[in-house]
Amino acid sequence: MLHLFMKVKSIPQRFNCYASYWKHSRIMRPDDANIVGNVHGGTILKMIEEAGGIISTRHCNTQSGDRCVAALARVERTDFLHPMFIGEVAHVSAEITYTSKHSVEVQVIVLAENILTGAKKVTNKATLWYVPFSLQNVDKIIEVPVIEYSSVEQEEEGKKRYDAQKMERLETKERNGEIINPVVSPEAYTVGFSQSSLIHLVGPSDCTLHGFVHGGVTMKLMDEVAGIVAARHCKTNIVTASVDAINFHRKIKKGCVVSVSGRMTFTSNKSMEIEVFVDADPLVEAARGKYRAVTAFFTYISLDKEGKPLSVPPLKLENEEEKKRFEEGKVRYLQNKAKRQAEKERQQ
Amino acid sequence: MLHLFMKVKSIPQRFNCYASYWKHSRIMRPDDANIVGNVHGGTILKMIEEAGGIISTRHCNTQSGDRCVAALARVERTDFLHPMFIGEVAHVSAEITYTSKHSVEVQVIVLAENILTGAKKVTNKATLWYVPFSLQNVDKIIEVPVIEYSSVEQEEEGKKRYDAQKMERLETKERNGEIINPVVSPEAYTVGFSQSSLIHLVGPSDCTLHGFVHGGVTMKLMDEVAGIVAARHCKTNIVTASVDAINFHRKIKKGCVVSVSGRMTFTSNKSMEIEVFVDADPLVEAARGKYRAVTAFFTYISLDKEGKPLSVPPLKLENEEEKKRFEEGKVRYLQNKAKRQAEKERQQ
Amino acid sequence: MLHLFMKVKSIPQRFNCYASYWKHSRIMRPDDANIVGNVHGGTILKMIEEAGGIISTRHCNTQSGDRCVAALARVERTDFLHPMFIGEVAHVSAEITYTSKHSVEVQVIVLAENILTGAKKVTNKATLWYVPFSLQNVDKIIEVPVIEYSSVEQEEEGKKRYDAQKMERLETKERNGEIINPVVSPEAYTVGFSQSSLIHLVGPSDCTLHGFVHGGVTMKLMDEVAGIVAARHCKTNIVTASVDAINFHRKIKKGCVVSVSGRMTFTSNKSMEIEVFVDADPLVEAARGKYRAVTAFFTYISLDKEGKPLSVPPLKLENEEEKKRFEEGKVRYLQNKAKRQAEKERQQ
Repeated sequence: MLHLFMKVKSIPQRFNCYASYWKHSRIMRPDDANIVGNVHGGTILKMIEEAGGIISTRHCNTQSGDRCVAALARVERTDFLHPMFIGEVAHVSAEITYTSKHSVEVQVIVLAENILTGAKKVTNKATLWYVPFSLQNVDKIIEVPVIEYSSVEQEEEGKKRYDAQKMERLETKERNGEIINPVVSPEAYTVGFSQSSLIHLVGPSDCTLHGFVHGGVTMKLMDEVAGIVAARHCKTNIVTASVDAINFHRKIKKGCVVSVSGRMTFTSNKSMEIEVFVDADPLVEAARGKYRAVTAFFTYISLDKEGKPLSVPPLKLENEEEKKRFEEGKVRYLQNKAKRQAEKERQQ
Repeated sequence: MLHLFMKVKSIPQRFNCYASYWKHSRIMRPDDANIVGNVHGGTILKMIEEAGGIISTRHCNTQSGDRCVAALARVERTDFLHPMFIGEVAHVSAEITYTSKHSVEVQVIVLAENILTGAKKVTNKATLWYVPFSLQNVDKIIEVPVIEYSSVEQEEEGKKRYDAQKMERLETKERNGEIINPVVSPEAYTVGFSQSSLIHLVGPSDCTLHGFVHGGVTMKLMDEVAGIVAARHCKTNIVTASVDAINFHRKIKKGCVVSVSGRMTFTSNKSMEIEVFVDADPLVEAARGKYRAVTAFFTYISLDKEGKPLSVPPLKLENEEEKKRFEEGKVRYLQNKAKRQAEKERQQ
Repeated sequence: MLHLFMKVKSIPQRFNCYASYWKHSRIMRPDDANIVGNVHGGTILKMIEEAGGIISTRHCNTQSGDRCVAALARVERTDFLHPMFIGEVAHVSAEITYTSKHSVEVQVIVLAENILTGAKKVTNKATLWYVPFSLQNVDKIIEVPVIEYSSVEQEEEGKKRYDAQKMERLETKERNGEIINPVVSPEAYTVGFSQSSLIHLVGPSDCTLHGFVHGGVTMKLMDEVAGIVAARHCKTNIVTASVDAINFHRKIKKGCVVSVSGRMTFTSNKSMEIEVFVDADPLVEAARGKYRAVTAFFTYISLDKEGKPLSVPPLKLENEEEKKRFEEGKVRYLQNKAKRQAEKERQQ
């Protein structure tokens, strides 16, 4: 190792990273975490997306023709396996695992390292899909260079994942009509009691080179709102347990105001599901008007001082719509539970 | 809608998104606060101004013609009614309450919510005036679309506020000549001992879409300097108690260096008044040179560990100018005290 | 590569980085750069120090006994070989290259990658020295675990660097008495005309786990002031060309006010040397009082729109002290020029 620094005339070997591979590390600071020191799920999602965006953009520019920037199109369901803490180092490594004609699949692993004890644990595994847009014409999608697979099986498995997510994206209802109505003097534990919203004026550092909001910035805002909804409901320390698949239907431009709203849809014994809507309002472009950009479901758990899961107060349902959403949430909850169970058995 | 601001005794029940109405929430992070956890007054002023800027910009773009951005022209005197803490959620709600031909009045309420206990308290009520500038020609002021009033009385009261602030703005001396002279080895408790100044290079995130510094960014820097002056004087935990009316005479452009200087002008038994000057230096535009952009008075109080107000060491005056400024500060102090007393009686 | 993601039961191989090696990458955002898009030297210095601090802290905790945090003690002279731009990815890689009983030498290389064109260039090579302080007792220095060297020569070369820097640190005058005196209505191109200072209240995100300011945060503030001094002098786009060796004599604690002042000491035909002082004022600890924490020399060059170096207006000297400092600056300038020349010849 040491010889590298002895004479650095040319670019050192270790920088010759593979075009389709990426590693990134950062120490977690007070602003990345809540007051008991748990790093926000949104901070982690933002780092994951940053890694994915860089690796996809780099890959899609390895050919001649238009320069382009890869925009986040979809994140697959993501679990938060362990909490991460202030002072730990987050290692994010990303790899391109499949390419279709117009999209790139990136798989990301996040590892938390306690540099004082040396302890390391995997906190997240995520799969993201990117689409490259031309820098010259932001509405034009570029063709993606093909990656090399180490076997035919790997390519086939990738194709299956691609088809599955494509199907799911088409099925996704955008829930465009849905809005979160305010409630006057709501009762504790009702939907109206904990529902929340925030607003953010999109600044330059929130945006890609072509002036659209990074998907990771949007996910961080969504996690912030969902976290407030969860904390309002159970009034304890809460952490992100998982995020359902998120589809990014429409891009959000610099200068827009982003409104993010969240409401609780389902509670199990130990978890809360929160639905989040993101609307973009291009203030100065009168013609376009406000539009729904993203929707998603976040699941939170409540923790005691030792980090052990607490029971969650059941959600009080007040009308037919809330009951319907609760039942739908229950279906998602049971499906995910079954999937996790199946995976456990497969790994044994 | 408008009646809400007329009397804010209780927490307002507003959640609807009219074009002339705005609500924004954000959790307070470590970097928003001092080391004992009190959120900086400057953080709150910045949030207030962001809300005002967004709602005014949106309103002024509801008509055809030039797209525009609303710039802060004036903030009325603002009291900090209660301290806010890390981990609390700040709710900022803004409403357009009057429009003249070229200006927009926005009233803002800030509420602190402790999401763990459910406790809520109003921390600020502020009134801001905005002027819309064209994006095509940044020196051109746009005509403001008229808002609807719920009664003739409301319009008339707005007109009165408009005329009153216009009068006051004209009367304001810009104190252009005033500079803060450095003092060699100053004695404790003198003006020279605590006076402070900072410089800040204006970056992209400090600026609006047309490249001028957000009024809120300027106010945050002013509060930072004033807070350091106050802490240097009394060497305890200090918090912003109020800010006198601030007029934004001249815009500050991206790339400028902003110098913010503060000096103590008056101390009462439990408060300190600090005068703050903001100068802008457009480095690379040799032609223009440095100019005074804003001046203001901030009032601070000193708190013990339980948050109870402490006595403030009296300011040592060393020359006639300092004595004159002290007397002027005393007049402002007594006027504000009388106003608060009158308001209290009116509300009973 | 792809197999890694197929089954992640244990921590993936690629995370088993060497304890003494570190790599970190980040995309450069608008807030990291000036208005023409050049990344601030201070942003780069901060990334370099972050990498060094993590790798040293990790290394010093690989033994049993007290947990500790490595604090920056010294940075060797650093050149900025090429400018870096917004949108480029900065790769920072750090390696421990020598350890003495109480200090760690870290060598860092920074590479800028344009992910749109694939172009890469080395922008910085830096050498930093860290000292590990106990978390239990912040005044106690921990013994550093020994690293393995690939040859006896490498260890000997490290020992030579260690002795050389130790000697230089002892020789360094702390310039404790020096203060930057303000000047009333200074003439253009004089020292008084461009001298600048800022104050910064140290916040949580500026600090290490044991509540002391990261050396990189201090260097970023120093570069900010030095950059303003340079821009005020020549009123053009300026970039950091090099930083002389910096010794961190005393730690700065959370809650302090940091004053950073800069004045021009020397100009050559194409460069400006700026001396920067950092003073820490622990506001609420009346006993200690203000103290000089760091001093350093920064060198800047002025660039035209194509990035070509411009001539710098010569510094107008007004008294004997300024002339003396100018002559000392000239000696440093000529020594560095000779060193660079010698290195060039050695590499050919």
